[in-house]
Amino acid sequence: MLTISSKNYSSWSLRGFLLCRLAGLDVAEARVSADDPAIRAELLLQSSSFLVPRLDHEGLRIWDTLAIAEYLHELKPEAGLLPTDRAARAHCRSISGEMHSGFANLRSALPMNLKAHHPGFKVWSGAQGDIVRILAIWTECLKTYGGPYLFGPAPTLADAMYAPVCARFTTYDVPLDARSRAYCKAMLALPAMKEWVAAAREEPDEMEELDVEF
Amino acid sequence: MLTISSKNYSSWSLRGFLLCRLAGLDVAEARVSADDPAIRAELLLQSSSFLVPRLDHEGLRIWDTLAIAEYLHELKPEAGLLPTDRAARAHCRSISGEMHSGFANLRSALPMNLKAHHPGFKVWSGAQGDIVRILAIWTECLKTYGGPYLFGPAPTLADAMYAPVCARFTTYDVPLDARSRAYCKAMLALPAMKEWVAAAREEPDEMEELDVEF
Repeated sequence: MLTISSKNYSSWSLRGFLLCRLAGLDVAEARVSADDPAIRAELLLQSSSFLVPRLDHEGLRIWDTLAIAEYLHELKPEAGLLPTDRAARAHCRSISGEMHSGFANLRSALPMNLKAHHPGFKVWSGAQGDIVRILAIWTECLKTYGGPYLFGPAPTLADAMYAPVCARFTTYDVPLDARSRAYCKAMLALPAMKEWVAAAREEPDEMEELDVEF
Repeated sequence: MLTISSKNYSSWSLRGFLLCRLAGLDVAEARVSADDPAIRAELLLQSSSFLVPRLDHEGLRIWDTLAIAEYLHELKPEAGLLPTDRAARAHCRSISGEMHSGFANLRSALPMNLKAHHPGFKVWSGAQGDIVRILAIWTECLKTYGGPYLFGPAPTLADAMYAPVCARFTTYDVPLDARSRAYCKAMLALPAMKEWVAAAREEPDEMEELDVEF
């Protein structure tokens, strides 16, 4: 059982979902309600949430995205959530950790919103620094490992971590070089990603319930 | 080679140092200067930093705390950075991940400052929520695994992650129950922790250089 919150707004929920799909783990979904104060705080970007994503599996409860990834990797090493090469694996964990703890400006200025599209969106300078850093990370990976995903021919933990960024760059019309644009396109074409985005577009709008204006 | 920044202020540097020590990895230290804009930003709590801690080892460069931990665990599994029991290991990674991505209010309101002591420090309500959550995490671990460390008789990744919190609770005189007080005491008595704190007290004050007032 994977507990998530909003499919439209919760980037952490998306990451947990993609990890389970990449690992080939067939889990039921449970949704926490936007009425929960902790989830409201998460959706309003006021706090990270330790409630989602949460994986309940074989009697264990795991509630952090990277912890879920390491658990799934132990459970299904053949799924390739982490690269088999030691150096690539350390690299994959480094950039995944950087996404996990960083990029606060990007998160607050360009919140994930799969339903929206803002052509010509004006990005403030704090978030611009985050974008520059992310594009540098992507470029290094795509050049080193040959794409189409960050660590080569199959998606890994790192792609799950950066998937919401691909969605944000699309929503907010962030200018991209050809290599990064191709990467975003490949990510958004993943079957699990398409399934998630389609479901997000169908869901009632929690932000309307929360009486929030963007 | 482990690259760190301020021993007094950089909680991430402390975590990286403790992880290397717990793994029994004898690494030289390199310090990045407070003149570096990225480090200034980190010390001023304006950004997380992808520059520290950074481990350069056998030709690999690893720059995220959790990535360093997983690398060290692969390199020295016998060091016990992660619990051997699968459920405990998932639990350890969950609370380590929660520290890695969360507790922003605690970080900004109670920055690590090993030289300082503020008796009767008034904690604002946002940070108080973080403190309550951390004490709940600690209590569950100490009860489940029997202490004195979070996962039993020897320190793990989780203890390295929460070590700066032990220091903060001491600096800011945060009221603790007996169990949590004993845990902080055990952490601060670790030889590696004592060595770090002693070195922090000797270092010139970067914040004075930065012309910052607290």
